[in-house]
Amino acid sequence: MKISRIDHLGIGVESIEKVLPYFENVLGLSCYAIEEVADQKVKTAFLKVGEVKLELLEPTSPDSPIAKWLEKGGKGVHHVAFAVEDGVAEALLEAESKEIRLIDKTPRAGAENMMIGFLHPKSTVGILTELCEPAK
Amino acid sequence: MKISRIDHLGIGVESIEKVLPYFENVLGLSCYAIEEVADQKVKTAFLKVGEVKLELLEPTSPDSPIAKWLEKGGKGVHHVAFAVEDGVAEALLEAESKEIRLIDKTPRAGAENMMIGFLHPKSTVGILTELCEPAK
Repeated sequence: MKISRIDHLGIGVESIEKVLPYFENVLGLSCYAIEEVADQKVKTAFLKVGEVKLELLEPTSPDSPIAKWLEKGGKGVHHVAFAVEDGVAEALLEAESKEIRLIDKTPRAGAENMMIGFLHPKSTVGILTELCEPAK
Repeated sequence: MKISRIDHLGIGVESIEKVLPYFENVLGLSCYAIEEVADQKVKTAFLKVGEVKLELLEPTSPDSPIAKWLEKGGKGVHHVAFAVEDGVAEALLEAESKEIRLIDKTPRAGAENMMIGFLHPKSTVGILTELCEPAK
């Protein structure tokens, strides 16, 4: 697959409101968008640092994947998303052909009008890995 | 502080040799340097993705901080390093003045001829955070 850059880091948090002052007042970054992703039961806040976005993820329901991750002691970086140039569908197929376990067999819609697909951390050095591209 | 970009993601691994095929053959990235950081008791391997480096960290001793982190169940992203434009010393002072707990009170030498300083994850949303700049 052709990865051009890290698109974003997904960061799991209990409360966006509580952590935003750290990112804005200490690190000096600014939040440019807040969006709810109903499908994943999260509220997201986006900040930009160079070419990479930080995507803060706050659960909107106790059965959100992020709520479960936080409950199990998850902290900080929840996933790393790579921008692929040759399409998410193709990249997922290629990964599967190389014996990488997939979470998503085919691309689905994510935040910020992106098509996304996840690889399983068991196959990716423990890093929950997202592949993404802008939706057409 | 003035953060210009993410300099690198530190990724803790048991064995660089074992995980490199994933990064190179599946993700299509290439390793351009391997370096030992005696001070931190790690061997490091660097890959570039866009403007960000992935720094794989393999412990060279059982009392390496990375060995301890892996032992406690640490997986994947161990730390996030931000490039600061106004100097690590100044950034550490500023963080401390904003009640951020520091691991390093003053900058020290890191891999790749960088000066670095760490903020404590208790103050940084659970993300072990490095600030860095090229050594002069």
